[in-house]
Amino acid sequence: MTVIKEKYKEIANKKRLERDSKWNLDWLIPESNLPSREIKDVLNFIDSHSFLTPLEIEITNSSAIEIVTNIQKQKWKSLQVTLAFCHRASISHQLCNNLSEIFFDKAIETAKELDDYQLKNNGKTIGPLHGLPVSLKDNFNVKGQATTLGMVNFCFNPEKFEEDSVLVSMLRNLGAILYVKTNVPVAMMLPETKNHIWGVTLNPMNRLLSAGGSSGGEASLIKLKGSPLGIGSDIGGSIRIPSSFQNLYSLKPSFGRFPTFGTRSGLPGLESVNSVNGPIGNNLQDLKFFCESIINSEPWNYDPKIVELPWRNIKLPEKLNLAVLIDDGIIQPTPPIRRGMELVINKLKTAGHDIIEWEPINHYRLSTLITEFFTSDGGKHVLNETLEVNEPLFPYMSNYGNSKDLPVSKLWKLQNERTILIKQVLDNWIQTSKKTKNGKPIDAIIMPVTPFAGNPIDKFYNYVGYTSPFNLCDFSTGTFPVSRVDSNIDKKDLSRNEYYNDTDFNISQDYDPIESHGGGVSLQLICRRFQEEKVLKILEVLEKLIDYKD
Amino acid sequence: MTVIKEKYKEIANKKRLERDSKWNLDWLIPESNLPSREIKDVLNFIDSHSFLTPLEIEITNSSAIEIVTNIQKQKWKSLQVTLAFCHRASISHQLCNNLSEIFFDKAIETAKELDDYQLKNNGKTIGPLHGLPVSLKDNFNVKGQATTLGMVNFCFNPEKFEEDSVLVSMLRNLGAILYVKTNVPVAMMLPETKNHIWGVTLNPMNRLLSAGGSSGGEASLIKLKGSPLGIGSDIGGSIRIPSSFQNLYSLKPSFGRFPTFGTRSGLPGLESVNSVNGPIGNNLQDLKFFCESIINSEPWNYDPKIVELPWRNIKLPEKLNLAVLIDDGIIQPTPPIRRGMELVINKLKTAGHDIIEWEPINHYRLSTLITEFFTSDGGKHVLNETLEVNEPLFPYMSNYGNSKDLPVSKLWKLQNERTILIKQVLDNWIQTSKKTKNGKPIDAIIMPVTPFAGNPIDKFYNYVGYTSPFNLCDFSTGTFPVSRVDSNIDKKDLSRNEYYNDTDFNISQDYDPIESHGGGVSLQLICRRFQEEKVLKILEVLEKLIDYKD
Repeated sequence: MTVIKEKYKEIANKKRLERDSKWNLDWLIPESNLPSREIKDVLNFIDSHSFLTPLEIEITNSSAIEIVTNIQKQKWKSLQVTLAFCHRASISHQLCNNLSEIFFDKAIETAKELDDYQLKNNGKTIGPLHGLPVSLKDNFNVKGQATTLGMVNFCFNPEKFEEDSVLVSMLRNLGAILYVKTNVPVAMMLPETKNHIWGVTLNPMNRLLSAGGSSGGEASLIKLKGSPLGIGSDIGGSIRIPSSFQNLYSLKPSFGRFPTFGTRSGLPGLESVNSVNGPIGNNLQDLKFFCESIINSEPWNYDPKIVELPWRNIKLPEKLNLAVLIDDGIIQPTPPIRRGMELVINKLKTAGHDIIEWEPINHYRLSTLITEFFTSDGGKHVLNETLEVNEPLFPYMSNYGNSKDLPVSKLWKLQNERTILIKQVLDNWIQTSKKTKNGKPIDAIIMPVTPFAGNPIDKFYNYVGYTSPFNLCDFSTGTFPVSRVDSNIDKKDLSRNEYYNDTDFNISQDYDPIESHGGGVSLQLICRRFQEEKVLKILEVLEKLIDYKD
Repeated sequence: MTVIKEKYKEIANKKRLERDSKWNLDWLIPESNLPSREIKDVLNFIDSHSFLTPLEIEITNSSAIEIVTNIQKQKWKSLQVTLAFCHRASISHQLCNNLSEIFFDKAIETAKELDDYQLKNNGKTIGPLHGLPVSLKDNFNVKGQATTLGMVNFCFNPEKFEEDSVLVSMLRNLGAILYVKTNVPVAMMLPETKNHIWGVTLNPMNRLLSAGGSSGGEASLIKLKGSPLGIGSDIGGSIRIPSSFQNLYSLKPSFGRFPTFGTRSGLPGLESVNSVNGPIGNNLQDLKFFCESIINSEPWNYDPKIVELPWRNIKLPEKLNLAVLIDDGIIQPTPPIRRGMELVINKLKTAGHDIIEWEPINHYRLSTLITEFFTSDGGKHVLNETLEVNEPLFPYMSNYGNSKDLPVSKLWKLQNERTILIKQVLDNWIQTSKKTKNGKPIDAIIMPVTPFAGNPIDKFYNYVGYTSPFNLCDFSTGTFPVSRVDSNIDKKDLSRNEYYNDTDFNISQDYDPIESHGGGVSLQLICRRFQEEKVLKILEVLEKLIDYKD
């Protein structure tokens, strides 16, 4: 009996051992040299020690654009770059447990081939990403690798995928080097990163805090510069939440801009809301570089859901019309997030931009509706996979165990309701023209990503109401860093004595400035559908105004 | 008991009486002057009699562009134009029973307002469609009018809509005059036009033939020049089939190009395949005029599903790469359709275009899959509405009465299957580059719309396998006229003695050159997603080559 009940542990253990047999032991730090668990902030740990060579430190501290430029100029070889990132990713994993699959051997092979290509072609590179290591969230299928999605039954099922996801194969064709996949929560359906195969991923800004999810492995790895650029996915906030917890730049595009075909889904066939892929990085210019590289390769030729829409040069008005939302009226953000919003609003006003308030019309119903869509199959897909190996569901995933497999007639009603709700959000957007000084609608909304700055591990609240409504609207959004939690400034708000609901009360009470010190304070920028270019352009404006440094 | 059983007839009768009380009796022809039922071809009936004034004949024989130009030049008043079309639409209805709702009074009111506007503004018009009557398929909600969709329970439920559909309100803002809505089959879910409220719509090219469906009222009305331009909808072939039966030009765009919000759906909330709206007209230039007018008005500001994609000027290569499909291997087209295909292929080859064969990969499964989507709610929506008033289902709609309301888990599997199938169609398209002379993929596919040329009423086969796969692929398609059935040429194929299946056998056997004489022979042009500009541009090439006249 015990053996059967523990089946999932055996499988997970076997998978872990298999993965762990692949580490290059020369790259790992002895346990004794690792910072103790009490050391919360490990951002400078790698650079301040001599585990990496000076060249490796230089390479891994470079932007994606700098890396490809230096390879093009033949200052660095692809192999040097790849080894540097494989090395740094290994240590970053020791610090924060952010990797799932590793395939350094394949990466080194590819790097050598690319160097050969360049040598034989008088320095010409194979494509704009020639030699650039790119990290992938676990859901991307990579030929020869597994895709577990943090679900034990997927550990060896299949053991290896036969084909790359469309985006992966495009990245390869552009010259990118694939070397790691990164950790996710079970089925990628939670805003944190924890599962029974790989455990929990930590936030390197403060290891008491969650890395966020579901692209938590990506954000944690990128923050430690174990990757110059990574690709996440987002169906309710999964790019934005971890990016904001780790103070990174990110882009959640509209569905149909970047290829998703051939990725493994936690909820395959769900279309009432669509998962999208987007880049996460330490700097904004790299995101644009990724977008241009992919879209200039005409992804609509490889994924039937992609819209034939070239990457456009756009010009912003000198003064922007921006709507801001500090508090959605469901969960009030904790003090550091409110400070972040005020800081940005003040800077924007000083710079002469027109700031109005955003009315969060339908946000609450949209945020509950999306959860109904997620479990509209009765949680059957997730549940069946876990039951197969007796894998227990985490308590906060109980809705995947007790939902009803809805009849399609009911789904049609919910989809119809959603369309009406998002039409009202659009109307609300257009009607902001009545509130702005120049009589034009807003260019974007700025608001929190979550009501907390990197919530502590085990103080986890499944509230994604600041992000998920914009998945249903399919708006283009991005995140940008503003500040870090400072226990000296972001004191607990003792004056508040009325709360919207129990969760609001709990989040407010649980906030502990000392515990959260150093956590990320990032915000969200929301533009309309297919306005990815505009998101990045406005993020440039914000980057200059805020001038954030870790 | 009898009374209850006949409830639907009573309601339908009341609705008909109400509508019929709105005719302007001066515009109707005495019954005795109408052509007898034996007169099949009524295309020239109106112009060859003096029911209309010479000016009315001139106006109604003009293209949409000529009409707005003459109003702009103040040669014609909006009122004159409106009266002419109301008059002609009334007679066309007497000939072919193509209208559902009529609101001539409102149209006349609007026309007067527009004339006033122009007078007060030194001849300036209110928008590009100033004064242009536009007919609407019944599913468009028009403020103050009912939308029955050919379903008895919708006759007075609601009696009047409070709000225009988004496209309708955009048309109004551009200056269009709305005056009629046109007949559809029950719930718009059949490729013919027949229901218990308004009866069956006839094909003016040959009144023994079906007008096709579901936009059959539109096509019949436009063919008789009771409308200069009309808007249909298409979820499985509903724009293309009636347009082809009536030898009209039409455009079925990709979903997200033209607004659909606020239309009444036969299957509300269905999103596994999306219904789209598109223009139908007697000439190609008017379709482009409609597209530009709507898209230049930025429909993405009014409908959350519209992609922000301006109307683009595109340039075709001098020699096109075209794939052709004469026979899908499921139902062989009858002789006139095969002649149409051969005629077009020969002209294209002579003109130097590169012609290859299209392999109908996955067409059959796509055509059965779409039917599964249509009834994935167990036909519940349609069935409940009919049961409410004891309205019987037509025999060929029995699947709406006996399907299963699927669990969402099953729908997800079907949606996943569809995505994989359409990816294979896309791959097939891209790989045509291996077969073309210049090594580039095809620009478009040319193939039949249906295997028959306007099937005879009561010889109705629910086979939409030539059109519906492209709804699932969401490709941009259009139709163009090629010829008319000629009983002297399109003889029955007596040599054939092997058939793909029973339906194939029946269609082949039922074909009767004498009965079908004069019917439309049109074909379908298929481009990829969001290539509406390319569809119209290639249709221009075909129009010149074929030089079709009725």
